[in-house]
Amino acid sequence: MTLLASFDGWMTTVQVHVEEALGALLPAAGREPARLHEAMRYSVLGGGKRVRPLLVFAAGGLFNADLETLARAAAAVEMIHAYSLVHDDMPCMDDDALRRGKPTVHMAYDEATALLVGDALQAQAFAVLADDASIAPARLVAMLRVLAHAAGPAGMCGGQAIDLASVGVSLTLKQLERMHQLKTGALLRASVLLGALAGRDVDAVELTALDTYSNAIGLAFQVVDDVLDATADSATLGKTAGKDAAANKPTYVSILGLDESILLAEKLRRAAHDALAPFGDKALRLRELADLIVQRKA
Amino acid sequence: MTLLASFDGWMTTVQVHVEEALGALLPAAGREPARLHEAMRYSVLGGGKRVRPLLVFAAGGLFNADLETLARAAAAVEMIHAYSLVHDDMPCMDDDALRRGKPTVHMAYDEATALLVGDALQAQAFAVLADDASIAPARLVAMLRVLAHAAGPAGMCGGQAIDLASVGVSLTLKQLERMHQLKTGALLRASVLLGALAGRDVDAVELTALDTYSNAIGLAFQVVDDVLDATADSATLGKTAGKDAAANKPTYVSILGLDESILLAEKLRRAAHDALAPFGDKALRLRELADLIVQRKA
Repeated sequence: MTLLASFDGWMTTVQVHVEEALGALLPAAGREPARLHEAMRYSVLGGGKRVRPLLVFAAGGLFNADLETLARAAAAVEMIHAYSLVHDDMPCMDDDALRRGKPTVHMAYDEATALLVGDALQAQAFAVLADDASIAPARLVAMLRVLAHAAGPAGMCGGQAIDLASVGVSLTLKQLERMHQLKTGALLRASVLLGALAGRDVDAVELTALDTYSNAIGLAFQVVDDVLDATADSATLGKTAGKDAAANKPTYVSILGLDESILLAEKLRRAAHDALAPFGDKALRLRELADLIVQRKA
Repeated sequence: MTLLASFDGWMTTVQVHVEEALGALLPAAGREPARLHEAMRYSVLGGGKRVRPLLVFAAGGLFNADLETLARAAAAVEMIHAYSLVHDDMPCMDDDALRRGKPTVHMAYDEATALLVGDALQAQAFAVLADDASIAPARLVAMLRVLAHAAGPAGMCGGQAIDLASVGVSLTLKQLERMHQLKTGALLRASVLLGALAGRDVDAVELTALDTYSNAIGLAFQVVDDVLDATADSATLGKTAGKDAAANKPTYVSILGLDESILLAEKLRRAAHDALAPFGDKALRLRELADLIVQRKA
């Protein structure tokens, strides 16, 4: 887990650690109500790039956080992310049949179970974080606040609501940015802050640097998503490609065009690097994650 | 708010106080995304008996909690309750058109909005509680743990999953009890504990007394619900009556019969009173609430 390891080696180590933590912190599959527990595990385990957990660990490394503490915080954030995917895939939302190359939860189980899985994962995320006795209570409360606000109407749910309202509507670039800052950016920012707070208090200068970094990668993440949605095939993405254009949803590609979108992603990647200057070499993993977010192929 | 006021006067005062807190702690209706915010307010404000907030205040009075602190905790619990109603009413769950005498959220708005309203209310509940700077952090973490576990797979969501799995299945009385302990009881217990913890730490003897009381009123609540579902009309209930029998769901009335169910509710009411003996006269409001839960007509 040191900075001496390669980025790929570090990523694999974190992913294995987080998978193990998720397995232990989700309800056991054999226990009643078994169908709910199985479906919760189905929706969370064994898939995904774990971008949010990687951000938790990268920021946590910078703030000297304990690895067990980070694994728990990362599991909490990933549960929030996984719940949002389960609900977003439901027929009344995006009506998607495929996620991470597997049938979505409402396809593999049923709609009522998918609804409950999402609800239960959100509660479990807060339970998992609140149960962490290794963090000083005042700092733990700060972390719970960050996660709750990032998940709620001023964060992820608010962004999703703007997304719903924007089908067939022509948004300005500013409005599109606002939507993604809430829908995706808020939880990415929460991942970075949770990692940092898992280590120690964050001062105002550090908070500004982390916020600037988070905003840049949050937008970059979405710009790249839109580019991939327009250019990659479903098999590579593990989800239905070309869906946003088909649904008449505004995207960076539809507003800026493909070439400008690719340039914007690169500009945001550099802005993310610049924001980390106050941390010096210790922020290597966060820089590498900004590169990963922009240079990924799926 | 003293014990000198009549029970009805006390209830009205609490209800007004909680309505005001909810109004202030829900996102403003005019702000974007306006449709989400409006639907959140529609689902929470202006209705319901506020049983959970009343329990928060009754337990809080016993533990000398500050009224503003109680109002915030009560609002958090009520948001969790309201979200569960919004999701339970959706077509893939109970498919109900009427709630508290008004169209359900997916009828008044749409299904996607109902899904998001529930998700956003759950996050907002944790945000509202975590934002309370008036509570010592260690105690606040304990409250957040209580709420998160009560809402999750080992609480409300787990009970709902058992409920889903039990349609058309003949449950034993013990299985039915287990379902309701999770589905309804867990959040009623959380209300009592949040009220107490809002005041001060709760010792082991007090915790046992509060748990015994909570279990008794939790079961009584459901027994009475089943009795009312079998005997009252929709206009009185403000929701569709006779629905459980029509859906072939096991109920206390279907297992025990009407007369035995009424006797059981009375027995549980007395058990709730007995559990409060260690607190003496100061537990008047909790006793009165046990009476209200059993003697209500809707």
